[in-house]
Amino acid sequence: MSLDYSTFDLGDLVLQGGATLRDAKLAYKTFGTLNAAKDNVILYPTWYSGQHYENEWLVGEGMALDPAKYFIIIPNMLGNGLSSSPSNMPEPYNGPRFPKVTAYDNVKAQHKLVTEQFGIEHIRLVTGWSMGALQTFQWGAQYPDMMDLIAPFCGSAKCSRHNFVFLEGVKAALTADAAWNEGWYTAKPARGLRAAARVYAGWGFSQTFYRQKLDIEALGYSSLEDFLVAFWEGFFLPKDANNLLTMLWTWQNGDISANELYKGDFKAALGAIKAKALVMPGQTDLYFPPEDSEFEVANMPNATLLPMPSVWGHFAGGPGTNPEDVKWLDAQLKELLAS
Amino acid sequence: MSLDYSTFDLGDLVLQGGATLRDAKLAYKTFGTLNAAKDNVILYPTWYSGQHYENEWLVGEGMALDPAKYFIIIPNMLGNGLSSSPSNMPEPYNGPRFPKVTAYDNVKAQHKLVTEQFGIEHIRLVTGWSMGALQTFQWGAQYPDMMDLIAPFCGSAKCSRHNFVFLEGVKAALTADAAWNEGWYTAKPARGLRAAARVYAGWGFSQTFYRQKLDIEALGYSSLEDFLVAFWEGFFLPKDANNLLTMLWTWQNGDISANELYKGDFKAALGAIKAKALVMPGQTDLYFPPEDSEFEVANMPNATLLPMPSVWGHFAGGPGTNPEDVKWLDAQLKELLAS
Repeated sequence: MSLDYSTFDLGDLVLQGGATLRDAKLAYKTFGTLNAAKDNVILYPTWYSGQHYENEWLVGEGMALDPAKYFIIIPNMLGNGLSSSPSNMPEPYNGPRFPKVTAYDNVKAQHKLVTEQFGIEHIRLVTGWSMGALQTFQWGAQYPDMMDLIAPFCGSAKCSRHNFVFLEGVKAALTADAAWNEGWYTAKPARGLRAAARVYAGWGFSQTFYRQKLDIEALGYSSLEDFLVAFWEGFFLPKDANNLLTMLWTWQNGDISANELYKGDFKAALGAIKAKALVMPGQTDLYFPPEDSEFEVANMPNATLLPMPSVWGHFAGGPGTNPEDVKWLDAQLKELLAS
Repeated sequence: MSLDYSTFDLGDLVLQGGATLRDAKLAYKTFGTLNAAKDNVILYPTWYSGQHYENEWLVGEGMALDPAKYFIIIPNMLGNGLSSSPSNMPEPYNGPRFPKVTAYDNVKAQHKLVTEQFGIEHIRLVTGWSMGALQTFQWGAQYPDMMDLIAPFCGSAKCSRHNFVFLEGVKAALTADAAWNEGWYTAKPARGLRAAARVYAGWGFSQTFYRQKLDIEALGYSSLEDFLVAFWEGFFLPKDANNLLTMLWTWQNGDISANELYKGDFKAALGAIKAKALVMPGQTDLYFPPEDSEFEVANMPNATLLPMPSVWGHFAGGPGTNPEDVKWLDAQLKELLAS
């Protein structure tokens, strides 16, 4: 079997929290060709539980992220099951012993990939959906001189308190299943995964999405219950519970200022982002509401706020769920890249 | 010990679903005195898991619901632990065998109390928060000639699909706990109750409430985690799991047209409400968004829509959580009663 992605050896990755991920791996996929000047790079990190192939809907000929023009790198987030994760880490840091990983750690690892593997010193654009947006903001603050543009969509530079609480619900549902066994499960904690999926279902799409029955009318499910089982439970069941909890922690502790550079001064971290930024929250996103993006944009020197005009809630931004939203997003990215 | 409420013997209550609640009980509390003309009656049903004493914040001297002027009846919802419920029903209809109860069944029982116990033929106002609002709408459609006014707040006449999904998350979290044991628990399924509480926490208050740290600044909790444990888990832990699931089913299946009168024709049921109605959704309520109320009001012959201008989400409407919201609500009810 040939894999559709590559793996970069990170060596011993010392994490913010103090643990060392020995012989750590960063799985990634690239599209297009790095030109001689190495100035056609787009970096496009993954989202909560997503893997590189679930980012590909925004890449294609004639699209903003066109492999004919750009060298597009999709790095898999630590914990997502392809890069180093609870599910694939050898003992003793495997399973529930897998350490806490931050957005800072992820971006540090990605920086290593970009510079050491490809010798890239400058990036044209960093963009991403949801936790991909968090990593996008993180890039902007962590390596402010390294890119021209950032375009985070349906995400934030710091996990809001409400977003934190929403995730507490997801986590509590998953871990209420005794089969989870504090992470030492021997078989899949299916009931907890299904419960987490049902909790997520109300948050992922907007009230209007459900009111308009777009689960049936647009996505083609046969009933609301079919949508909950086939789409939502089907989405969570194949995923490893410890992986999900690792990434959930990364998300809940997302904060581009939580590092030595900014020492928790969120405004300073936002203010340090030099890239021209196009910040696109979803107009009806229930856990990344536009109000949080307004604060971010107001504190960034070169940022524009452009809410996504969609009733698809958080899923307006991915993963290619609604063709109309993809079209809109692609058009904005084209305009940004042309600027 | 003397109880602060009375109990009405409903006798054998035949439910919509076909079961008979034999020797059923309706617990209620009254305030004020029924006048000779019996025309000073206000009916004020309870909300999800709430008991009569948790409705009292809207009753008081000088308030709209003034016991000096009105005879106020607070009937406890079936399943809430005081009226007939899984937790207090004798065998064989106890625990998880407690039958499905609808809003129609509840209102039918309350009608029996009002007419048979007190000989009341006309009600001045029916009002309620949340599931109390559902029962308020239900009264308006089920006994359209019986009241002058209805004032449902932060609730709906029919459970929306999104609201249904939100409740699926609460239910899935509670029932993911193996200790729940399909309802045949011998000890409290504490982990599931705590998980349900955490799921609910993100829904109960708005993004803005959390952004403004009103859990700390207004409610006085010492941290977000303290709010999640002390307020939310503390709220759910004393409640019986089967009671919660019984009321959740009532909520999810709330629909004022789901009966012989209207045969599922929701517009017809709304159109049949003769009472002058003041419908007050919470402006930032995440599960009863104003849009659903707009549809209801547009299809009611004599209704006014007045969203509650509050960032307290669903809890703008109760249970007396924010004094400013109580003041606003009380003022609207005064104006309505004076009309």
